[in-house]
Amino acid sequence: MIVAELRKLLENVKNGHVEIENALEQLKNLPYKDIGIAKIDYHRELRNGYPEVIYCQGKDIGHIQQIVQDMLRRGNNILATRAEKDVYEAVKKICPEAEYHELARMITVKRKEVPVPDTYIAVVTGGTADIPVAEEAVVTAQMLGNKVERVYDVGVAGLHRLLGNLDIITSAKVIIAVAGMEGALASVVGGLVDKPVLAVPTSIGYGANFHGLAALLCMLNSCASGVAVMNIDNGFGAGYMASMINKL
Amino acid sequence: MIVAELRKLLENVKNGHVEIENALEQLKNLPYKDIGIAKIDYHRELRNGYPEVIYCQGKDIGHIQQIVQDMLRRGNNILATRAEKDVYEAVKKICPEAEYHELARMITVKRKEVPVPDTYIAVVTGGTADIPVAEEAVVTAQMLGNKVERVYDVGVAGLHRLLGNLDIITSAKVIIAVAGMEGALASVVGGLVDKPVLAVPTSIGYGANFHGLAALLCMLNSCASGVAVMNIDNGFGAGYMASMINKL
Amino acid sequence: MIVAELRKLLENVKNGHVEIENALEQLKNLPYKDIGIAKIDYHRELRNGYPEVIYCQGKDIGHIQQIVQDMLRRGNNILATRAEKDVYEAVKKICPEAEYHELARMITVKRKEVPVPDTYIAVVTGGTADIPVAEEAVVTAQMLGNKVERVYDVGVAGLHRLLGNLDIITSAKVIIAVAGMEGALASVVGGLVDKPVLAVPTSIGYGANFHGLAALLCMLNSCASGVAVMNIDNGFGAGYMASMINKL
Amino acid sequence: MIVAELRKLLENVKNGHVEIENALEQLKNLPYKDIGIAKIDYHRELRNGYPEVIYCQGKDIGHIQQIVQDMLRRGNNILATRAEKDVYEAVKKICPEAEYHELARMITVKRKEVPVPDTYIAVVTGGTADIPVAEEAVVTAQMLGNKVERVYDVGVAGLHRLLGNLDIITSAKVIIAVAGMEGALASVVGGLVDKPVLAVPTSIGYGANFHGLAALLCMLNSCASGVAVMNIDNGFGAGYMASMINKL
Amino acid sequence: MIVAELRKLLENVKNGHVEIENALEQLKNLPYKDIGIAKIDYHRELRNGYPEVIYCQGKDIGHIQQIVQDMLRRGNNILATRAEKDVYEAVKKICPEAEYHELARMITVKRKEVPVPDTYIAVVTGGTADIPVAEEAVVTAQMLGNKVERVYDVGVAGLHRLLGNLDIITSAKVIIAVAGMEGALASVVGGLVDKPVLAVPTSIGYGANFHGLAALLCMLNSCASGVAVMNIDNGFGAGYMASMINKL
Amino acid sequence: MIVAELRKLLENVKNGHVEIENALEQLKNLPYKDIGIAKIDYHRELRNGYPEVIYCQGKDIGHIQQIVQDMLRRGNNILATRAEKDVYEAVKKICPEAEYHELARMITVKRKEVPVPDTYIAVVTGGTADIPVAEEAVVTAQMLGNKVERVYDVGVAGLHRLLGNLDIITSAKVIIAVAGMEGALASVVGGLVDKPVLAVPTSIGYGANFHGLAALLCMLNSCASGVAVMNIDNGFGAGYMASMINKL
Amino acid sequence: MIVAELRKLLENVKNGHVEIENALEQLKNLPYKDIGIAKIDYHRELRNGYPEVIYCQGKDIGHIQQIVQDMLRRGNNILATRAEKDVYEAVKKICPEAEYHELARMITVKRKEVPVPDTYIAVVTGGTADIPVAEEAVVTAQMLGNKVERVYDVGVAGLHRLLGNLDIITSAKVIIAVAGMEGALASVVGGLVDKPVLAVPTSIGYGANFHGLAALLCMLNSCASGVAVMNIDNGFGAGYMASMINKL
Amino acid sequence: MIVAELRKLLENVKNGHVEIENALEQLKNLPYKDIGIAKIDYHRELRNGYPEVIYCQGKDIGHIQQIVQDMLRRGNNILATRAEKDVYEAVKKICPEAEYHELARMITVKRKEVPVPDTYIAVVTGGTADIPVAEEAVVTAQMLGNKVERVYDVGVAGLHRLLGNLDIITSAKVIIAVAGMEGALASVVGGLVDKPVLAVPTSIGYGANFHGLAALLCMLNSCASGVAVMNIDNGFGAGYMASMINKL
Repeated sequence: MIVAELRKLLENVKNGHVEIENALEQLKNLPYKDIGIAKIDYHRELRNGYPEVIYCQGKDIGHIQQIVQDMLRRGNNILATRAEKDVYEAVKKICPEAEYHELARMITVKRKEVPVPDTYIAVVTGGTADIPVAEEAVVTAQMLGNKVERVYDVGVAGLHRLLGNLDIITSAKVIIAVAGMEGALASVVGGLVDKPVLAVPTSIGYGANFHGLAALLCMLNSCASGVAVMNIDNGFGAGYMASMINKL
Repeated sequence: MIVAELRKLLENVKNGHVEIENALEQLKNLPYKDIGIAKIDYHRELRNGYPEVIYCQGKDIGHIQQIVQDMLRRGNNILATRAEKDVYEAVKKICPEAEYHELARMITVKRKEVPVPDTYIAVVTGGTADIPVAEEAVVTAQMLGNKVERVYDVGVAGLHRLLGNLDIITSAKVIIAVAGMEGALASVVGGLVDKPVLAVPTSIGYGANFHGLAALLCMLNSCASGVAVMNIDNGFGAGYMASMINKL
Repeated sequence: MIVAELRKLLENVKNGHVEIENALEQLKNLPYKDIGIAKIDYHRELRNGYPEVIYCQGKDIGHIQQIVQDMLRRGNNILATRAEKDVYEAVKKICPEAEYHELARMITVKRKEVPVPDTYIAVVTGGTADIPVAEEAVVTAQMLGNKVERVYDVGVAGLHRLLGNLDIITSAKVIIAVAGMEGALASVVGGLVDKPVLAVPTSIGYGANFHGLAALLCMLNSCASGVAVMNIDNGFGAGYMASMINKL
Repeated sequence: MIVAELRKLLENVKNGHVEIENALEQLKNLPYKDIGIAKIDYHRELRNGYPEVIYCQGKDIGHIQQIVQDMLRRGNNILATRAEKDVYEAVKKICPEAEYHELARMITVKRKEVPVPDTYIAVVTGGTADIPVAEEAVVTAQMLGNKVERVYDVGVAGLHRLLGNLDIITSAKVIIAVAGMEGALASVVGGLVDKPVLAVPTSIGYGANFHGLAALLCMLNSCASGVAVMNIDNGFGAGYMASMINKL
Repeated sequence: MIVAELRKLLENVKNGHVEIENALEQLKNLPYKDIGIAKIDYHRELRNGYPEVIYCQGKDIGHIQQIVQDMLRRGNNILATRAEKDVYEAVKKICPEAEYHELARMITVKRKEVPVPDTYIAVVTGGTADIPVAEEAVVTAQMLGNKVERVYDVGVAGLHRLLGNLDIITSAKVIIAVAGMEGALASVVGGLVDKPVLAVPTSIGYGANFHGLAALLCMLNSCASGVAVMNIDNGFGAGYMASMINKL
Repeated sequence: MIVAELRKLLENVKNGHVEIENALEQLKNLPYKDIGIAKIDYHRELRNGYPEVIYCQGKDIGHIQQIVQDMLRRGNNILATRAEKDVYEAVKKICPEAEYHELARMITVKRKEVPVPDTYIAVVTGGTADIPVAEEAVVTAQMLGNKVERVYDVGVAGLHRLLGNLDIITSAKVIIAVAGMEGALASVVGGLVDKPVLAVPTSIGYGANFHGLAALLCMLNSCASGVAVMNIDNGFGAGYMASMINKL
Repeated sequence: MIVAELRKLLENVKNGHVEIENALEQLKNLPYKDIGIAKIDYHRELRNGYPEVIYCQGKDIGHIQQIVQDMLRRGNNILATRAEKDVYEAVKKICPEAEYHELARMITVKRKEVPVPDTYIAVVTGGTADIPVAEEAVVTAQMLGNKVERVYDVGVAGLHRLLGNLDIITSAKVIIAVAGMEGALASVVGGLVDKPVLAVPTSIGYGANFHGLAALLCMLNSCASGVAVMNIDNGFGAGYMASMINKL
Repeated sequence: MIVAELRKLLENVKNGHVEIENALEQLKNLPYKDIGIAKIDYHRELRNGYPEVIYCQGKDIGHIQQIVQDMLRRGNNILATRAEKDVYEAVKKICPEAEYHELARMITVKRKEVPVPDTYIAVVTGGTADIPVAEEAVVTAQMLGNKVERVYDVGVAGLHRLLGNLDIITSAKVIIAVAGMEGALASVVGGLVDKPVLAVPTSIGYGANFHGLAALLCMLNSCASGVAVMNIDNGFGAGYMASMINKL
């Protein structure tokens, strides 16, 4: 892609359609917008209609408003992650159509339709406490244009609950397995289906769970093939990657 | 799938085609073969022509021979991982067509053709020392019926090497990024392409690398979207999952 | 058990007493109840009069009320763990006979009698700060139908306190040893008695205690035989397992 | 027990049957034998016919011979753990009836019969590589007078293998679940049965397994109730504790 | 000591001065007082005039009052550690002569004089932020009857400050070195003096300090001889052990 | 330097210009000022016009005021790090010209001019959340007399942003690379430029980031040459060291 | 630099001096040489006469020979790190002028003179066991064209040894402090001098040293300003970075 | 001490007895001997007849011979630690009176008598596998002029063995408690006696022992007062510090 763009630019330079200094400027400034406090990346969105993403945690609310303002001007869909309610209130002021997904702690602004394939992503959780992370994956995947099926609270301690829902899981194109505690869900799901499984350890647990480390290590060591692992509590990343796979 | 088989079995029971005790037996014994020292899983192979896999590390050579013998009888392809040369010598005695992949430490026995899609998997490494893990992924992916492109030794310390090979990487359907040391390759690749990236940390490094922990943590925390992580040195797992995605 | 149920179902299918689709439904839905936000497991309770358990930490209070409501309808005993006072207040509104165990942070609802064997469980603590975890074990064990003897504050720094209470400990059928700091209590108790010891490390301590890691490692490495270890602060798990053993 | 012995001694002192200094000597020397290089503990054996146990790792072969010699003089059963073949050769010289269990790396000398209850212990492993640890548990349990059923290679990646053997597991009085990699076996077994499960993580695995840490943390965080955990690779401890429980 | 007491008791039993059951009672109850919520250890105090110590962290204020009440009845000195101001207010109500040491977070009640040797303990800190831990050591040592010299804020980054105070440090009988950050103070002091150094790592620092782990490891690995290490922030333990050494 | 001063002092002693006791006093007291609560180090400032630095975290506000008071008397520049707003308010009362740098959490008092070289330091961040740590480095470097260029929000996930600003980075004399998450920025910058890179991991991230550990390990293992690492979040240290290098 | 080259290329394209496809080729192939097994980076060498570096550990000896062969053809200086004696023997066969530095485990081939500045680098070690890592730094720095002064075995446990050599250390332009055990040397040196200190933790030590972790953490937490840290045992990196600073 | 020497030197300078340059030389060279490969510290020995200590691990045998040669010339006692048999053979060649302590892996050369106090040091171990570390402490303490009592193999799993030897332990002036596995011995001993306890964790154990980490953490968190901790396996350090305390 970068090479392709470079070729076109070189042709334009050769033809005299573009000046050298101007070409250099284009190379430097094109794919992002420098608004002082941030360099917003408009790279991906241009190519595939993906929304622009703001990771809100640790960011100043004023800064978030500035970033959203700039994004709105371009007419893109917007997805804000790890957004507490006060962030939503602030965004809503400058963008009344913003929606808040409380469990997922996400804000979405939908301004363009995104094509949705027929296949779907299954999002499975071990317990009810894992639902917020799962919902982050769900909202992300939906916003990127995917159908999602939720299969919640089917942890391995009561295997019959998982086996009873196997049909929905097996028919998905890609599966997101979200689990805290010991994180064994990913291995069991990975052993039962022939689809790629994205395992998301959550920080649910206590004691020797060490804030998700137990589930993380469990998932990385899965004896089932076809399991890849996301960072602890990274529902967004799982939703994003699952969308990539679902749209292949 | 399991539900589907169960339905058929129930119908057969109802029709009297299958006795109850016999049905129970089928449920118990069908999907694996108990050869005493191991319960070989013939589940996946039946469904999709995948080879049977033996993880050799820590297994007795005599046991490996027994397992291979049983597999040969069924006429399937065989893939043995983490196999040192002496394991290969032992396998060759009972299966002369076995091939050895020295860098990847793998044995393959090919007896059936597997359909190969047009799309390919790119396998990228940070350094030359990461090549054995990369080759494990390559041989696995090829054995499962995939085309693979190798892009080796393009670590981020010399970014121009990576940028110079971007075309091959961008055109792949899925990318395996193999890197030791600090493992930054996965983030850089993940930021440059719009394809799913399977990141494999390797144990290459010293000191505060802690046998691959540094690369593992780096990859799990990737600021690029679309990156999922395998266990340290798990080339087989990456090849397997990449194959699943490439064949979607 | 599952095999036994399956046989009966197969027989009913054969006899035409149960339709195939219906049989599949039974297999899917029988052992748990899907109330939307959770899939409540009624598996164990059916078989042995055990109470239903809700792990409250991180759960929404409204959700907990919903779950309790469903459980009440079935007339079972209920045990809620890691329940802060506000959870109790909420549960009490819909179930006035609910009792609160403040030290143990537990709610119990007793609606059926559970048979109690003559033997007892001894619950031993190293210090007074370990008492909340010990009480979680005590309430759990009592709710499951066991007699319990408390031997608190007998840590190894004052060995005479432990030796002075050895009679009570030695006569128990199974012993729960709860200790923070360095967790040496489990080894000393394990060396003095011939009964199974369930060791529960607590997070009591500071500095290089690392939130219970020191006690956990100490207990896992016990040089005394007959010691098995629970997660840090897992009083419930110890009470549950001790009850299993006491009722053998 | 200690109090009971003390009472008898006090009575003998009162009656003049025992001199004070002599009483002090008895208190000091009775329950162990000081042979210079070691203080052999004859405490347990006196009470319950248990064998004497020697942990061989790191001990000088000459020292082991000395210890065995002293034990032989007392006519007890002997169990030596972590004994390499050269240790066995040395022991055999002074005790020709010694038997070697190669997989379990154990030496046994049987000189007295131990009563065996009707109930049995099930020893379950995730893979074939976990068998040595499992065999250590098996030999220990058998030596202590227990029947054992082996259910090997039934890891969660192929769940049907486990479900197909559920009858044997469910009918045991206590279950030992031995697993490396991610150690999910313990949770799945714990969720399927109503018997105490002793979980033994093994050091089988690589990379982020960290020599058994992954399986250990997984087992400690098990979401199934009724699971207690042994040290990594501690087959002996599991066999010992299971024997205690099986004989209750 | 225990043997000596036992001999006397045996003699009394022999002489008929003490009944057997009574002797057993004495053995069980003498060295501590069971007040229900705690078993207060009066062992040490009886022998050497040491104060009774209450570790307040995590204890209920009402419980602390009960324990103090019982101690007051016996007329001993009292030392309460990790006591926040509200604990002091509560203790003061039932014991108006209680003093509060704010920096050290300690309460002292002095009712008996303790002999004070001529030699002194030097308490050295790396920075001013380490002073609270140092003061815990100072108050403990003083309460146990020791002279103390404070040498604060002489960290190794400004070595001249340490060298300028070397006289005071060298003349002490034992030195307590308190330091956070990298904890190098202990090694430097240990290399400069010929006295036992008790090193106390503090949790002062940030980032890769990991709450005192850096200083702890540094001190444990000291290349200077004559340095032993206490737990992170354990000023009390250092003061106690230094007192033991100073009084030899 | 110390040797040079010692020589002069020895000469003065020899000439009788300085008394021996007086010489000893000079040696002891000269390079710092003991104000009771702290020993302020005036060593460096005397030699090179550097400001005096107060690390405020964990220090009593009254103490900070005392220290500032003493420093003001000497007329030096002052730099207070990790100073929350209330610390600034307190300092401002006794020093109205004190300035507050909110993002950097620093207070500066400028009373002397410091010479500024022509070369500059580039401060680069991966994201906007890393800016506070970067600003700590910026303010430190400026206060020590350096020109600084900020290049913020150029993380490796959007490599074009970094490449577009390469000119500014390449022309610096020394570069500070500040990054959280996986910290790959340092390697990429280190691979692109021929200048010393001071890498500062930040604690920005979640899950397996472990409060900056991931970025720290990544930077320590950088496959690019010319990268040295500071403690997590240590912007001050990076600014200080960069100033040293920029002024060479 | 990259921008400058790009501008020239664009001008050549515009002038028709370079064809577009050819320009693309140049962009792709110029800065490295693909020899199949590796992509040798000739980037840095072209610009500043630096030697080409081969990290030998884990590389096949045949591959190393191939790489050296290619480098020799270009007439550059060569520096091979972590090279065992057999690697040297192999290199010597194809390059007789290769020199071996046994302590440093390095091979050097000098074919061009490198300009050497007047200033020097001081390399300081805590103990004699740290010398191999120090020598790696020394040989690297010398090969890159620097004068080096060695100050070995001056650890903080005998501070007088360090103080006695302060002159040499203080007069250096940059200091490399190499230390194992607790690594306190870096802090003490950093506190005594006004020059940048590159701290290299070594893996020398045992027990709670954890293969250099103790020294690493100590150095990262240094309370002295002007200390930056390299990976454990990374003498090469320290020599490289010190050379960069010394040549500024 | 240093100040005292400085005063004398200043007086001599003043009196003209010593030249300034000469005085500087004295300051630099007096307390150690630079033999090229090492700077031997003769500081301590001058003052208190302590032997010179060589830590042999990782040192070249030729270097060790050189160091011993230099020490022999001064007529001091010599203590070499972590010396394998081949080191002893080499030392014996140049010093036939050298003795080897095989278990302790130490070489001693006794050339001067050291005064021995009446009090003694008790060295206690948990198991027989801890004896090598204990012997390192014993030989060190004896070489420094102390009487030692060994109480080996009295671990807490068989508490009666410890209680039976309490007299010897209680009568010591200082106690060294050496234990691996869970390291509980230190707490139990610390709770039973009123003497300073130096706790030495050993690396004996497996699995979650993590090479002594479990015992180390256990000892650091000891709930008994009067326990300070040495590095894992640091018998020498314990013997050295115990000698310091025994000689007070």
